[in-house]
Amino acid sequence: MAYNLLQGKKGIIFGALDEKSIAWKTAQRCKAEGAELVLSNAPIALRMGTINQLAEEVNAPVIPADVTITADIENLFTKAQEHFGGKIDFVLHSIGMSLNVRKGVHYTENNYDFTHKGLDISALSLHRILQVAMKQDAINEWGSVVALSYIAAQRVFPDYNDMADNKAMLESIARNFGYQYGVKKNVRINTISQSPTRTTAGSGVKGFDGFVDFAEKMSPLGNATADQCADYCVTLFSDLTRMVTMQNLFHDGGFSFTGVTQAIIEQMDK
Amino acid sequence: MAYNLLQGKKGIIFGALDEKSIAWKTAQRCKAEGAELVLSNAPIALRMGTINQLAEEVNAPVIPADVTITADIENLFTKAQEHFGGKIDFVLHSIGMSLNVRKGVHYTENNYDFTHKGLDISALSLHRILQVAMKQDAINEWGSVVALSYIAAQRVFPDYNDMADNKAMLESIARNFGYQYGVKKNVRINTISQSPTRTTAGSGVKGFDGFVDFAEKMSPLGNATADQCADYCVTLFSDLTRMVTMQNLFHDGGFSFTGVTQAIIEQMDK
Amino acid sequence: MAYNLLQGKKGIIFGALDEKSIAWKTAQRCKAEGAELVLSNAPIALRMGTINQLAEEVNAPVIPADVTITADIENLFTKAQEHFGGKIDFVLHSIGMSLNVRKGVHYTENNYDFTHKGLDISALSLHRILQVAMKQDAINEWGSVVALSYIAAQRVFPDYNDMADNKAMLESIARNFGYQYGVKKNVRINTISQSPTRTTAGSGVKGFDGFVDFAEKMSPLGNATADQCADYCVTLFSDLTRMVTMQNLFHDGGFSFTGVTQAIIEQMDK
Amino acid sequence: MAYNLLQGKKGIIFGALDEKSIAWKTAQRCKAEGAELVLSNAPIALRMGTINQLAEEVNAPVIPADVTITADIENLFTKAQEHFGGKIDFVLHSIGMSLNVRKGVHYTENNYDFTHKGLDISALSLHRILQVAMKQDAINEWGSVVALSYIAAQRVFPDYNDMADNKAMLESIARNFGYQYGVKKNVRINTISQSPTRTTAGSGVKGFDGFVDFAEKMSPLGNATADQCADYCVTLFSDLTRMVTMQNLFHDGGFSFTGVTQAIIEQMDK
Repeated sequence: MAYNLLQGKKGIIFGALDEKSIAWKTAQRCKAEGAELVLSNAPIALRMGTINQLAEEVNAPVIPADVTITADIENLFTKAQEHFGGKIDFVLHSIGMSLNVRKGVHYTENNYDFTHKGLDISALSLHRILQVAMKQDAINEWGSVVALSYIAAQRVFPDYNDMADNKAMLESIARNFGYQYGVKKNVRINTISQSPTRTTAGSGVKGFDGFVDFAEKMSPLGNATADQCADYCVTLFSDLTRMVTMQNLFHDGGFSFTGVTQAIIEQMDK
Repeated sequence: MAYNLLQGKKGIIFGALDEKSIAWKTAQRCKAEGAELVLSNAPIALRMGTINQLAEEVNAPVIPADVTITADIENLFTKAQEHFGGKIDFVLHSIGMSLNVRKGVHYTENNYDFTHKGLDISALSLHRILQVAMKQDAINEWGSVVALSYIAAQRVFPDYNDMADNKAMLESIARNFGYQYGVKKNVRINTISQSPTRTTAGSGVKGFDGFVDFAEKMSPLGNATADQCADYCVTLFSDLTRMVTMQNLFHDGGFSFTGVTQAIIEQMDK
Repeated sequence: MAYNLLQGKKGIIFGALDEKSIAWKTAQRCKAEGAELVLSNAPIALRMGTINQLAEEVNAPVIPADVTITADIENLFTKAQEHFGGKIDFVLHSIGMSLNVRKGVHYTENNYDFTHKGLDISALSLHRILQVAMKQDAINEWGSVVALSYIAAQRVFPDYNDMADNKAMLESIARNFGYQYGVKKNVRINTISQSPTRTTAGSGVKGFDGFVDFAEKMSPLGNATADQCADYCVTLFSDLTRMVTMQNLFHDGGFSFTGVTQAIIEQMDK
Repeated sequence: MAYNLLQGKKGIIFGALDEKSIAWKTAQRCKAEGAELVLSNAPIALRMGTINQLAEEVNAPVIPADVTITADIENLFTKAQEHFGGKIDFVLHSIGMSLNVRKGVHYTENNYDFTHKGLDISALSLHRILQVAMKQDAINEWGSVVALSYIAAQRVFPDYNDMADNKAMLESIARNFGYQYGVKKNVRINTISQSPTRTTAGSGVKGFDGFVDFAEKMSPLGNATADQCADYCVTLFSDLTRMVTMQNLFHDGGFSFTGVTQAIIEQMDK
């Protein structure tokens, strides 16, 4: 089903790696809802993934950008506005990476160079993108920015390692920049705290499968899928949610407010 | 703009009193999005308000129900299903009343008969509605229930009196019944925590105007209007938000996560 | 160990049933820290329990009070002040009861007469106690009131039934009356959200054992005991925590901010 | 008043600059409660402040450490254990600095080198300290670590700039390391979210005075002082709070759960 919810809107989607990516699904859904798109990802991710296939499908240019480099983001926003012939209405930030996770460094033994690198990519990237957008006055009034987060920002999931701290900082940046951009241009900024999702990125986390099973059993509606997350993003990019800003919105089948389920209690007896 | 987001869906709207009501606006928006409706309110509210005008406009029957009387709710759900020729997809609960507020009884001197009456109308009514719906198996799989709340459930607004406790309980019922109905039928239940809104009901609260001004100055996007709340309800009734449940969703222009604004700081210096 | 933290302070302890009760342990600890006490409980609880043994041990009168009857509470505060020859410094509210739980009525089928009775005993009782105390001006400046709560006020624990809603309301009353009593007399009011504890009251909840085991495995420090809760109450009654008010304080070995533990993940694989 | 609450305990206090510092007051109170201390601060802060005066008063060595340098922290923990002839029971982390604040760079224009530096000092420093402590097994079972935070971690205070993000990350680290250290050694880690306090550090924030006045008017008990914060720290270092971990504890006279006060409403009318 499509509703033309984004008819005439223009958006930048960061982070589509392959067809399992939430960003990939969101690009497809936004296109179906009438939006025009620009896709972006880090040069290395562009080489590893299959984004050109998506680009063709949604008829969007791919503009590479390393989100830790301001000049890259400036180039992206300049080119995107040239492409659209105007300003941007929405942005999806689906970017995260922890070198401590990748290298298997335990949280208590984190390498701080890795930590800084992870923060730069996973959290400060949102600040950089918004700083550039604000300087270029690149986002239309009532534009909408969404970044993907995870409940490890609020509660400890040990294997999530320093991505937890990255997400806490990401959500803080969404709030703080959300205030500034709201006051200035009525641009709203929110994070979606999504169920653990079997994407290529997610799979890198140690113990991820046990994790997903636990979340599935602990969610009254089960885990939310990438497709469902894409649907939810569409509502947040639409004009129907204009007064929602600076929020962290759980999209998780009820996991976040469930203390225990019957399914888990039964598992305890095994 | 309309998008056919609720095409083919059937809903019950509680609490439309007059054209300022959030429920009134929501009924209009749901109709515009393709839904069929049944309207309900307490017999006394039906006499005081102008609901018949709305009923005509959205082509919906009005079925009176005192939400503190189980038999009334049973009758409503039975009649609504007869009218629709099928089950219900969504419910809006926009119901609240405090006798302590009405009679001007200070919070510290609350009359407990008034308190119980207020709880019955403002909070337990949601439980009663859901209990009847579940017994009659009246809501379709993936149906959506929304109740309107206020941030006084989390933080103290002194003039809000015992409505604060009522709303805290309302949100708790949404969570707890949300779990049960989610597990059983994938029905999701959420509350929207709306900006203070100049409705006929809202105006009853002492000091309401000071309140609204403060909230306006304290919200980066300003206060959300009743019309905007109606838009937000539509997204929650739609199929695009299926995995959102047991949440309290702030629809308030950013008020909930703003500690102070420049506008308030300037006011402090006066 | 004792530190004379409550030397010269006078307190009322509600809810000591038998030697497993948190209120019982708290009375013992307060006495050891130098406080003078009055004990109170409902007439029926006085008959069922062994409070006279405690009364002798801590050298405190027992003054019965049904906390749903204002006159009983008035009598208690009057008598307590006569006994102490002065005002009161602290109050422990350890009171809760759900008829729906006792009668085994499922949450979705709650009997609303039972619900109102449970609210009256478990939540409104705190309001009544504070209303009487304020009217009699019975609490000294910087006095401290603590009520015991449970995390079901924030997240769903299905077997906790309508006690979840009662606790949500209790915490709301603590906040709202905390504001009022704070502004008026610098009296602070907080709730402690305690680990599930194997008291005689707690044991009434269906599935309580599975519950306690889950919480134990889910808490980095394990579940907090009744003795440890008594220690924590002492700090909140002392002069060292004067600026803590309107808070819900988790005393739970870290349960509240733990999303999953290694122990639970391993249990998932069984 | 002193109670011997910390008799026989050994602690490290980071961040005492001058006699207005919370860390300074906490050192005095810990000493009065029977603790032995080691003081630490950055070399530059040691030169600017008057810590030697405190060192003499509380009979504690000063061991300099730049908390962004692991070797410095290793040296500190080694020396502290030599001095004490044993392990450490508690640590106070009262460290924070933002170059963006100092240089007057607006949040939306933050310099990311400054941001990384601020994160390193204000947030990652806690991780570094805990990593070293764990490697050296330097903290006794049931030891207690407290870091000072501010409510800007949850809600936006525009002038607080990127310190808001730093504090969000600090609290996340407290939670995540709190889990790890809790499971391993029953060491508990908490943050205290303190009222804005007129310390030498606090005064650096633009608009700090308007801030403090607003908080004063918005807190039912007024702002908590540095002395009161020191008292609260003592309770958290004591054995009476052993099951409190991974919490962010508001010590703010009720500010955090107050939506508006009568005093603010009156100010709105001016």
